Amino acid sequence: MRVPPRVAIVEVGPRDGLQNEASAITTADKIAFIDRLSDAGHHVIEVSAFVSPKWVPQMADAAEVFAGITRHAGVRYTALVPNRAGLTRAVAAGVTEIGIFAAASETFSQRNINQSIDASLATYAEVCREALAAGLAVRGYLSTCFGCPYEGVIAPSQVARVAARLLELGVFEVAISDTIGIAHPGQVAPVLDAVTAVVPLAQVALHFHDTRGTALANVLAGLDYGVTTFDSSAGGLGGCPFAPGAAGNLATEDLLYMLDGLGVETGVDLARVSSASRFIEARLVHRLPSRYLQATSP
Amino acid sequence: MRVPPRVAIVEVGPRDGLQNEASAITTADKIAFIDRLSDAGHHVIEVSAFVSPKWVPQMADAAEVFAGITRHAGVRYTALVPNRAGLTRAVAAGVTEIGIFAAASETFSQRNINQSIDASLATYAEVCREALAAGLAVRGYLSTCFGCPYEGVIAPSQVARVAARLLELGVFEVAISDTIGIAHPGQVAPVLDAVTAVVPLAQVALHFHDTRGTALANVLAGLDYGVTTFDSSAGGLGGCPFAPGAAGNLATEDLLYMLDGLGVETGVDLARVSSASRFIEARLVHRLPSRYLQATSP
Repeated sequence: MRVPPRVAIVEVGPRDGLQNEASAITTADKIAFIDRLSDAGHHVIEVSAFVSPKWVPQMADAAEVFAGITRHAGVRYTALVPNRAGLTRAVAAGVTEIGIFAAASETFSQRNINQSIDASLATYAEVCREALAAGLAVRGYLSTCFGCPYEGVIAPSQVARVAARLLELGVFEVAISDTIGIAHPGQVAPVLDAVTAVVPLAQVALHFHDTRGTALANVLAGLDYGVTTFDSSAGGLGGCPFAPGAAGNLATEDLLYMLDGLGVETGVDLARVSSASRFIEARLVHRLPSRYLQATSP
Repeated sequence: MRVPPRVAIVEVGPRDGLQNEASAITTADKIAFIDRLSDAGHHVIEVSAFVSPKWVPQMADAAEVFAGITRHAGVRYTALVPNRAGLTRAVAAGVTEIGIFAAASETFSQRNINQSIDASLATYAEVCREALAAGLAVRGYLSTCFGCPYEGVIAPSQVARVAARLLELGVFEVAISDTIGIAHPGQVAPVLDAVTAVVPLAQVALHFHDTRGTALANVLAGLDYGVTTFDSSAGGLGGCPFAPGAAGNLATEDLLYMLDGLGVETGVDLARVSSASRFIEARLVHRLPSRYLQATSP
């Protein structure tokens, strides 16, 4: 079993995490949370999303959050952008890296963003053209790569097909995502075999949810494959919209505990991430699901 | 990454699990729980412990539980036994397989069972002699193999030293245990390298706790090494005595979800185990920590 000497962690707690939390978090608390994550040594932090406040009220203050955070040199502060209107707001807020999100599952695309895969890619083509022309970097998220709540199994070839189209749009990285936390480690190599046939391995990230407890085992399979970028969420912030109370995003602490043990460098400090998580946990109505955080909480 | 075609699961929920639960469970409920686990297809169930009721009140009804359960043909129903007095009670209850528990950490042995490692092995030598003469099988548990709450790191050579002494006593299997849930997958091969130098791989089981979320990743590393016996607890029953509220034993459901995905045969039915867990969860004051169970609970 091989592990790379160093991996990059993409901290998605403030966006993918908070977006799925029922508690309304104040702008000041979001800013303080993100600043603590910067202090923990994170190199990439997904800060917010420039989506419709009608659809996602938790992200309505995206511009204010970007205006309030202390940007550390060399740290990438990113935002999700669904369309050109969002891009305009992001650029106005001084965002230099955006994320776009497509689905590998046709049904999930229809139900999650009310667009077919083709229609969403057409929208993103415009967004990417404009973003790249303005000098922004674009990351592509690809959801339901390991299974879909509506369609079940998604063929690796279908994942690869949409991943390739994202790459054609000019994204620098494709985050192969297990949106519903259904992946097991036996799926990792087959999906990556298909994806890396069309996207260079160095441009592939893995984004796991811990809904069924397999996230770290999946990461281990990904490390063995040679993947060097993994998404995670402080404290495991972000429940599972399909099972209230269940775990959602892989917790950054759990990921770090394993990577630290394996001797894989990340530059991120486990104790400081835990401190940031406890700060935001105190603003929620439930405990955060990170196993490490729960085991080490006073 | 290799996986064996079939592995054996040792279900430890009724003993290692319930022993660490604060709620007193009635004898009838324990029997009903164990019968449900038998119905789920388990081949080995750790039923109870013949320990002093003063020390472990939850296990005071060990004989009544053994008398009440429906024994399925071919299923091993086991009990922990700390000394000759316990063995006498176990034999009287019709137990045909016992477990003894030593520690790899000298300090943990002193604090957990008030005996040095040497003193505990002297006690177990008598227990094993008597048990083997009576035709019982004996399994050896070895705790703190991946770290100790008092001593920190435990050298793999020390783990191997005590494992070898257990084997000399006549145990048919040594369960290399991560008592405090501190193991990461990078430790699995070095510990197994040391242990399998003195204990044949086929006689080595792995017993992980999910306290820091790494249990399934550790199992994956164990599968890759060729281990074919893993302990787990229905629902993740059994908290962590060092961190109230935190996860303890690896949940059988989470293990099964991963093994089923990997195509590894176990003979155990995930839905039926979940049903058994929900039965016992209703008698506890908290939710069971199994990720799979939480994600699939109504």
